[in-house]
Amino acid sequence: GLGGQKSDQPTVHVETRRCWRKMENCKRLILFLTLSLVLGISSVVLAFIWVVYYREGLGWDGGAAEFNWHPLLMVMGFIFLQGFAIIVYRLPWTWRCSKQKMKFIHAGLNVVAFILAVISVVAVFDFHNEKSIPNMYSLHSWIGLALVVMYPAQMVTGIAVYLIPVTPVYFRAALMPVHIYSGLFIFGSVIATALMGFTEKLIFSLKSPAYKDSPPEAVLVNVLGLLLSAFGGLLLWIVTRPEWKRPREQVELTLANSRAGLGEIKDNTAVNARVDLDTNNETRRRNGKGEELG
Amino acid sequence: GLGGQKSDQPTVHVETRRCWRKMENCKRLILFLTLSLVLGISSVVLAFIWVVYYREGLGWDGGAAEFNWHPLLMVMGFIFLQGFAIIVYRLPWTWRCSKQKMKFIHAGLNVVAFILAVISVVAVFDFHNEKSIPNMYSLHSWIGLALVVMYPAQMVTGIAVYLIPVTPVYFRAALMPVHIYSGLFIFGSVIATALMGFTEKLIFSLKSPAYKDSPPEAVLVNVLGLLLSAFGGLLLWIVTRPEWKRPREQVELTLANSRAGLGEIKDNTAVNARVDLDTNNETRRRNGKGEELG
Repeated sequence: GLGGQKSDQPTVHVETRRCWRKMENCKRLILFLTLSLVLGISSVVLAFIWVVYYREGLGWDGGAAEFNWHPLLMVMGFIFLQGFAIIVYRLPWTWRCSKQKMKFIHAGLNVVAFILAVISVVAVFDFHNEKSIPNMYSLHSWIGLALVVMYPAQMVTGIAVYLIPVTPVYFRAALMPVHIYSGLFIFGSVIATALMGFTEKLIFSLKSPAYKDSPPEAVLVNVLGLLLSAFGGLLLWIVTRPEWKRPREQVELTLANSRAGLGEIKDNTAVNARVDLDTNNETRRRNGKGEELG
Repeated sequence: GLGGQKSDQPTVHVETRRCWRKMENCKRLILFLTLSLVLGISSVVLAFIWVVYYREGLGWDGGAAEFNWHPLLMVMGFIFLQGFAIIVYRLPWTWRCSKQKMKFIHAGLNVVAFILAVISVVAVFDFHNEKSIPNMYSLHSWIGLALVVMYPAQMVTGIAVYLIPVTPVYFRAALMPVHIYSGLFIFGSVIATALMGFTEKLIFSLKSPAYKDSPPEAVLVNVLGLLLSAFGGLLLWIVTRPEWKRPREQVELTLANSRAGLGEIKDNTAVNARVDLDTNNETRRRNGKGEELG
């Protein structure tokens, strides 16, 4: 049990239990990751079916086919790829790769997601201008644009603080909760913005039958909205579980220690930010004693 | 600094710094709480101005005035009161009250929020039926209804597990991360659902000038959407800061210990779920070493 255990059991028993729990934990993590992958890919497929089968397909002519890149690229980039970028440290088969390498993948995926988001925004502005529809009047556009500005700000800060090896270690550590929180806030808000966008588009596009008559297209996009909400919810669950964190890099730690001599650390790589946290804390963290989030 | 400090400083220095940091922390928490209160109250006021000044006011006649209870009660109950219920453990001036009392306030506020949400849903169904508008066709209604079902499920579970003193301590501890996560997920999703509702209502109600012409009502409701997003974001920040957690109840702990004799705990109150976590862990948690969330 987690709670009222007495401490009179032999250490071996505790170790066995911890090991068993670790394996169970890992299995469950992989189950959750697989489910989120299925939800993410299904969302992209539904978005594609929507714009190609129910709408005017894809093109770059200032018309409806250009607009259609907007929902498709947003679901692919700003939601699916951003989600994948967030979760990249939680893939157990990457725990043998260096943290530095994973950071580059994390940053790279976010950059690609941002480029897709920008193309997606350009498509809408083109479409609006061609059809003389005003830009930036809706709540969807207000919050959406705010996120398209916050996202690169988050990325530039992240790259400057965590990839360029000049930032002081205490500063990296102090900023990490902010980096994590604002990343997750942007991710959740992007999904909320997509739901507003679906609502707008279904009301504007469906005339007879209208949205309120629930034609197949309306049901498809509603289901897409549910899938994206589930994708977001699952991903936020995975990423806030302390017991599913990427393990600290013992090898690199040892290397850094031996390079610097006798535990005096001068190197500035991110892994050293963790040097002064004892392993007891690590163990406790991984055991996932409740209420880490609240 | 948080990171690369050597451990050769005197303990007194550490203690002084911790004390100072605690005060600074508390000040900042109160600043954030005040800001979230201002955002929450402003949202309720804007929702009221919207339905009374720009719309048909309030009534219970199956018409537009009955519909208007929907956004108003949702903002008041499902968003503002639920947010307040979530944050209630983070009010420093309540840290002298017993945890049990605070739990009752937490549960009570959620019950009131749920009652308002139900009345609010009834108002919409009445309005739709009176006007022969179909129910439950929109993504807003699908996600909204799911949340109105998940919310009481969360409450019944919470009351059964944390208020009725028969649940085993290990079970309370094991379920706490789920309780916290699902509460925050519901809260965030309710705000996302409100944003979809605003989008729908503005498109349906504004004809000439239309939503795209940005009349004052459209701007007001867009601003309301921004305020609610900021309210949600701020509240989620406050509630996920480990250093702003309600301190553990030392007095009750001591009492429980002396009642049970020599650290053997038999009592079932929630506070005992924390007995076996050592104080070191507590200290480290409150110092807010980074990455608690990720």
